[in-house]
Amino acid sequence: MAAHPAKKAKMENGSSGIGPMVTGGTVSWDRGGEPFFSMGAGTLRVPMAMHATHREKLCEVLRKRPEVGAGAVILLQGGKEASVYDTDTNWDFKQESNFQYLFGVKEPDCYAALRVHDARAVLFVPRMEKMYQAWCGPIKPPAWFQKAYGVHEAAHTDEIVQTLRELGAKELLCVRGSPNRDSGLQLEEPNFDGKDQFGFNQRGSGALWDELNEIRSVKDEEELKILQWVNDVSAEAHLETMRAVQGGQREHLAEATFKYKAALRGCFRVGYSCICGSGRRNAILHYGHAAEPNSELVQAGSLRLLDMGAEYHGYSADVTCSFPVSGRFSRPQRIVYEAVWDAVLAVERVLQPGVCYKDMHRLAQRTLLERMTSAGLFVGSVEDMMAAGLMFHFMPHGLGHQLGLDVHDVGGYPPGEFRKDDPSVQENLRLGRKVKENMVLTVEPGFYFIDYLIEEALADTKKGGFINQEVLHEFWADVGGVRIEDDVVITSNGCRVLTCVPRTVEEIEAVMAGGAWQVSAACCRSYTAGSKM
Amino acid sequence: MAAHPAKKAKMENGSSGIGPMVTGGTVSWDRGGEPFFSMGAGTLRVPMAMHATHREKLCEVLRKRPEVGAGAVILLQGGKEASVYDTDTNWDFKQESNFQYLFGVKEPDCYAALRVHDARAVLFVPRMEKMYQAWCGPIKPPAWFQKAYGVHEAAHTDEIVQTLRELGAKELLCVRGSPNRDSGLQLEEPNFDGKDQFGFNQRGSGALWDELNEIRSVKDEEELKILQWVNDVSAEAHLETMRAVQGGQREHLAEATFKYKAALRGCFRVGYSCICGSGRRNAILHYGHAAEPNSELVQAGSLRLLDMGAEYHGYSADVTCSFPVSGRFSRPQRIVYEAVWDAVLAVERVLQPGVCYKDMHRLAQRTLLERMTSAGLFVGSVEDMMAAGLMFHFMPHGLGHQLGLDVHDVGGYPPGEFRKDDPSVQENLRLGRKVKENMVLTVEPGFYFIDYLIEEALADTKKGGFINQEVLHEFWADVGGVRIEDDVVITSNGCRVLTCVPRTVEEIEAVMAGGAWQVSAACCRSYTAGSKM
Repeated sequence: MAAHPAKKAKMENGSSGIGPMVTGGTVSWDRGGEPFFSMGAGTLRVPMAMHATHREKLCEVLRKRPEVGAGAVILLQGGKEASVYDTDTNWDFKQESNFQYLFGVKEPDCYAALRVHDARAVLFVPRMEKMYQAWCGPIKPPAWFQKAYGVHEAAHTDEIVQTLRELGAKELLCVRGSPNRDSGLQLEEPNFDGKDQFGFNQRGSGALWDELNEIRSVKDEEELKILQWVNDVSAEAHLETMRAVQGGQREHLAEATFKYKAALRGCFRVGYSCICGSGRRNAILHYGHAAEPNSELVQAGSLRLLDMGAEYHGYSADVTCSFPVSGRFSRPQRIVYEAVWDAVLAVERVLQPGVCYKDMHRLAQRTLLERMTSAGLFVGSVEDMMAAGLMFHFMPHGLGHQLGLDVHDVGGYPPGEFRKDDPSVQENLRLGRKVKENMVLTVEPGFYFIDYLIEEALADTKKGGFINQEVLHEFWADVGGVRIEDDVVITSNGCRVLTCVPRTVEEIEAVMAGGAWQVSAACCRSYTAGSKM
Repeated sequence: MAAHPAKKAKMENGSSGIGPMVTGGTVSWDRGGEPFFSMGAGTLRVPMAMHATHREKLCEVLRKRPEVGAGAVILLQGGKEASVYDTDTNWDFKQESNFQYLFGVKEPDCYAALRVHDARAVLFVPRMEKMYQAWCGPIKPPAWFQKAYGVHEAAHTDEIVQTLRELGAKELLCVRGSPNRDSGLQLEEPNFDGKDQFGFNQRGSGALWDELNEIRSVKDEEELKILQWVNDVSAEAHLETMRAVQGGQREHLAEATFKYKAALRGCFRVGYSCICGSGRRNAILHYGHAAEPNSELVQAGSLRLLDMGAEYHGYSADVTCSFPVSGRFSRPQRIVYEAVWDAVLAVERVLQPGVCYKDMHRLAQRTLLERMTSAGLFVGSVEDMMAAGLMFHFMPHGLGHQLGLDVHDVGGYPPGEFRKDDPSVQENLRLGRKVKENMVLTVEPGFYFIDYLIEEALADTKKGGFINQEVLHEFWADVGGVRIEDDVVITSNGCRVLTCVPRTVEEIEAVMAGGAWQVSAACCRSYTAGSKM
């Protein structure tokens, strides 16, 4: 029953005598006090200063916009933790991408204010109840958030109104009513108590949306390092997956292997649902969704098409490898694979700033038509086939898209222009503008045997006339579909491929036979447009 | 340019000549036409007839309720595929639990009608556009859904009104305004065009909600098989994780290993976020959330607390293992571990139908107080400690909860009674009723050193007087926290443990030293209440 007065006195001083608990390990700071994100030793350090640079860049362009007033303050709402239906479990959290771009904050339910005239940044975090400590961990004070994320100030979300007043906010710029130009969906409008005490600038908010999309669409050096990192992790995980694949397995073994190998290197999320088809299911472009969860048996003689990308600090890779389960391509598999690979090379060899991606899309289509005409599948003039829209039936998707915080990243079309604006592109081309230096995009041609699209082509007198059905039947079931997807950064005079995986038939067959493969940024292909290296 | 008339004629007959594409592999049917869910060879087959039984059981009890009219039809909405913010990626899908219970449907965006008087079941699936085939796979006709899920009829969601008329619906029973009694949250109300053409029965819907919760709270034989299966998969994955843990790793290696091993056995989701603490972070009850993503360094001498459960066909296991990273318990670690283990045994030995779980909660508390008094941490009378609420400071959570489709499953309190109704239980006790045969629940006592709760206890004259601070400081940092969590089914005269992992100190140390461990349902402990086996 005795208390221990000496120790008790110590406790009452507010110290447990055993120091604070260490938590929050993904965000830390170095000896100089510079905060960074990392997943531990051997993983990439991302300096939080990158997000300050993003904020400054955004404010700088907004200051030039006449719609934006001198007292403008941007008010953003971060991603909310969302319940799984009416249960007390949550969907896995991912930060909302604009919030991530500007603040890099991993905690849910935050807000932020950014004053346009001087890029002063304030982060707002929820005020936690005492019991939070038992269930979720030590309550970090605003000062921790201020330091961890390198913002000028941090406060609680119930202090937004007061803080906006202190910032001298004359008008608010918010995300409101502007659709994501890739998906057409809209973000929820930020909502907080006392919001109606501030004037809302609708046109200025439109400018905010457009400029934010534009600056996100061109990557800086730190973002390029992250995108290289997720590509390297993805390449290693693809390699291990290729080596683990066998006939008689379920398709999802590839997904499990990829996610595990990526997680071991600190990439805990994938940027999109893993697409792990085999055989004829390679022709389902977004296979692997809830209704088709990569669950079929893999046949020993089939091709696999694995489209999987690791995510780190919100940025995603997007990599597709197609390869034979047996380790050796059959003749039809090889023909289609090499046609698709030629389309990749044709595009990467000419990509450079100023090139319009619609032209690249058509270049890939032409290359595929030429190669498959040489192979005997098609008969006639490639230009006639192009004019007839034949390729839609064998590759109904676009050649590629922007890549970054979203796997189909923003900025695929400039402000005011939409994907569907050009009726001459029937395919779902998510990137249709002139590319700029430091844009990161995917080059992902494919060639698929999609039953209903083939049947439609054959039923059309003109299109059907181009197709040699005997050859078609050699390819249809044996190949199913092929896609090759590289992530590529546009350089000043060409492009550099971020994705270092075996690509030629020879490379793939060697690796599948147990050959070595070294993933490193140094091994990635670089092109100077016009040269033939 | 030549067409091939012979082959073309074949195509026009509607046959590609290569047969339909095989997809949808998780739902299939046996030679007798009986549909089932499975993840392939070596995984569990769940007959869809289980869901028909659930529907019949529900209708049977509803027919006895005076609030439900003769022409009542239940109309349910399944889980919707939800976009990640404004992007075109989706959160991983999990079916809504009531819908899963009654229909077992893995596809999102469905509805269902169930006529109370004869349990006639109609499933409604979305009508897909033609392009669905290219992006998501073959469009399965309603007839496929009818057969795959063993319902009387399947139709498209735009046929709900017409079908309800054909069913002679005089009143609709829907989920509307009834909170989940575990979380307090509400499901979205079903919404469809033409809904206002039918009378809605508010009181009958209340009866539906109550009865659905009650029948879900007692498991049938097929559900018990699934819960045993997810326990076996989880036990194997825990074992592999225990063997992989080392000092110097990041905590999340445990999460990656567990998920991978579970996925290899067909369990692609976990039922809740993995809690993978080490050392003092074991005292964070729901560690591993977005803000604290299991990312700290594991110290070689620390204890780990791993709370992870695999999910299959919507049903989740919920298993916690605590063990020393070094493979050998330190003296303080062993003392606390054995106290918690004694609390598990004390409860499992007396659990049987009719026992109130609040009493079990108090039994666990008393056992822990006794053991920790013997160990010298507490001084005084256990009954005085109970009266003072001392245990709240060392185990601020409830002893356990219902388990099933939700990890905190419904039915922890009977209709009309809520968790907070009993002021004598300060802890968050999710299960507070008399247990029944075939309820499945968790037994998960713990003992934690949570800084602020200890400081509060010490600051309280009465509670502080029970604590020997010298001994406290021996335990605090070295132990951090211990939880042991079994999943248990109540039998006619006792209980059976579903969780087959090493539990005694000797078993754990043997396994960590490389000893064998056989996971099988046969090795699970069974108790007849009152006996001392």
